Amino acid sequence: MSVTYAQGFSAAGVVAGVSSVAGKKDMAVVVNEGPLDACAGVFTSNRFCAAPVQWSRSVVADGHITAVVLNSGCANACTGTEGFEQSKASAEEVAKELGIQSQQVAVCSTGLIGELLPLDRVLSGAKEALRQRQSDEQSGIDASEAIMTTDTQPKTVQLDGKGYRVGGMVKGSGMIAPQLATMICVITTDAVVSAGALQAALNSAVDMSFNRIDVDGCMSTNDTVLLLASGASGVEPDPDEFNALVSQACAQLARKIIGDGEGSSHDIRIVVKGAEHEDAALACARSVAASNLLKCAIYGNDPNWGRVVSSLGVVPEDIAQYRPEDVDVVINGVKVCDGGKPGQDRSLVNMSAREVHIDIDLHIGKAETTVWTDDLTHDYVHINADYES
Amino acid sequence: MSVTYAQGFSAAGVVAGVSSVAGKKDMAVVVNEGPLDACAGVFTSNRFCAAPVQWSRSVVADGHITAVVLNSGCANACTGTEGFEQSKASAEEVAKELGIQSQQVAVCSTGLIGELLPLDRVLSGAKEALRQRQSDEQSGIDASEAIMTTDTQPKTVQLDGKGYRVGGMVKGSGMIAPQLATMICVITTDAVVSAGALQAALNSAVDMSFNRIDVDGCMSTNDTVLLLASGASGVEPDPDEFNALVSQACAQLARKIIGDGEGSSHDIRIVVKGAEHEDAALACARSVAASNLLKCAIYGNDPNWGRVVSSLGVVPEDIAQYRPEDVDVVINGVKVCDGGKPGQDRSLVNMSAREVHIDIDLHIGKAETTVWTDDLTHDYVHINADYES
Repeated sequence: MSVTYAQGFSAAGVVAGVSSVAGKKDMAVVVNEGPLDACAGVFTSNRFCAAPVQWSRSVVADGHITAVVLNSGCANACTGTEGFEQSKASAEEVAKELGIQSQQVAVCSTGLIGELLPLDRVLSGAKEALRQRQSDEQSGIDASEAIMTTDTQPKTVQLDGKGYRVGGMVKGSGMIAPQLATMICVITTDAVVSAGALQAALNSAVDMSFNRIDVDGCMSTNDTVLLLASGASGVEPDPDEFNALVSQACAQLARKIIGDGEGSSHDIRIVVKGAEHEDAALACARSVAASNLLKCAIYGNDPNWGRVVSSLGVVPEDIAQYRPEDVDVVINGVKVCDGGKPGQDRSLVNMSAREVHIDIDLHIGKAETTVWTDDLTHDYVHINADYES
Repeated sequence: MSVTYAQGFSAAGVVAGVSSVAGKKDMAVVVNEGPLDACAGVFTSNRFCAAPVQWSRSVVADGHITAVVLNSGCANACTGTEGFEQSKASAEEVAKELGIQSQQVAVCSTGLIGELLPLDRVLSGAKEALRQRQSDEQSGIDASEAIMTTDTQPKTVQLDGKGYRVGGMVKGSGMIAPQLATMICVITTDAVVSAGALQAALNSAVDMSFNRIDVDGCMSTNDTVLLLASGASGVEPDPDEFNALVSQACAQLARKIIGDGEGSSHDIRIVVKGAEHEDAALACARSVAASNLLKCAIYGNDPNWGRVVSSLGVVPEDIAQYRPEDVDVVINGVKVCDGGKPGQDRSLVNMSAREVHIDIDLHIGKAETTVWTDDLTHDYVHINADYES
């Protein structure tokens, strides 16, 4: 269902010839048919942010957009003013077709960095996608397929509030790091919500979802999360319920990114508890999640807690207080490290499930947080050594 | 020649049965036969530092040690007070044999984290190594072999000053990150140098060598660099020449670690120039060196400059000033990114050599620095997924 689960949205995904994979759907549109056109956005903090990010950040700033045009196969990143003109031209083409202003059109691109778009194909693909757009289930699925790159499956969400709906799609599989870990995500709702309330809901949701996952520690130039409200349900939601629903949508999509992390064979949930404050717990969890050595060990079904604590040990004391001799590490329910020393025998740990749970207790406070990552596999290396070819 | 190149040092490497690899040399001693016993040390900043690091940091603090006992096969890290007692017992055994105090004996261990030493074997191995120790070439080589773990070859250095010598050995192949990237290194000299001068020379040398390499971003619990002076040459060196020689020894050993990085097929030299100050250049170079995506691309012989700039883009502005639209990236002499945009065609880059040179110009100042890393390969994953088995 994806972005068309909420009323008041149409979408399409088409083959435009932008991707180098023949016959792959590579362009999508999502159109907010109204009555509202409220929106919110969160973008990459990478200083080499791509042309479409520069464009979209600017047009989303006033809290109103009507359409999003998206392509895979080319990121239009590090392409200078010419790249920016291409993103602008894409928005203008969509605006012309819809009879709106180009400032009402956001643009998202994903794929290779450092190459300009094949603009003719993008413009004709955008027109074709707009012509084909519908509000049915299949159109939403088509759009979610069109934004895939190394993703092995489309990633969507659909949730129900009291009298309104939230739908969404995301692409992302590699170049996934906190702040912001996604690549491209569009969430739609037919609730009646102001742009300000949307932005607040989105900021909070992103912080607890896309900012808590890490496939490979590499931050993209193109990360974009958009939240669009059509108001088509006519329902003004309870703010707390709405915020929770948006958070749930982002959390489910983030979890699906981890489940589809490039080449991954294990999804690794890292919980750090007993921290003085949440930032300390987060710094510890992220340091563990970033360890190539740990991620290789998990791939080898080895509950190597030495690589957990050696990663914890890199976090400076002024960031996270703890005493090494107090720290426990539990892997899939087995306390392999007890007070900084060997605990139960690591051979007791069952590593056969896809999910691996690493629970770390710092024993110095009450704060807790969760971060997800993937294991580091032969296939990750294969995918990323050969992505160009 | 290794540590026995300098006069006044004896060494040995023996099979003690500590390593799980049958017949592998796994224990070494290095003895300073005098007349001086000056020393300096630099140790890991990991908060989970191993028992031998705790012991050695303490005994090196006064600037005098006579012997170093080293083992591979077990890191004696995260082993609590029992582990510390084991390191102390090892030092005491060596001291008893040599008729000195245990505070004159440093201890180094490398291998699996989270397991206690097989102490009987370590103590008998230490005695055997002391019995066998000699000052000849082969004994130095034996010692450098005994400290290897995933290293594929012993790594040694020998340099000549005016009337004195510097020799050294290092082990390290994975779990190599800046601050401090080595694992275990012993450097010897027969020059007449005070402990204070040794420490100053070592600090400066380490900062420009072991702190500038990164195999996998993972900091060890056991990193130790020791510099011992016997004074046997009777020569008081020119301080500048001596400092330069120690720096050269560390640089050569660090370069050899990169050349033997786990599973690596390319050594990657990253130069960042045109920075405002050296710390800014270093932050940029380290961020690029830590990119799994770039390291996979280099393994695939792909001069993927998009992954260079996306890593640069993660460095905060308050750490390194630059304008993305000014940045150039040259790979093996080809300017693939020119002012933040595509430059020469990437197909012009010849990636056939083992060394790959990535030169980044920020065009905002005059500072420059160099960092080395390895590519990320199938073999790295293989080695680290199966290290336990």
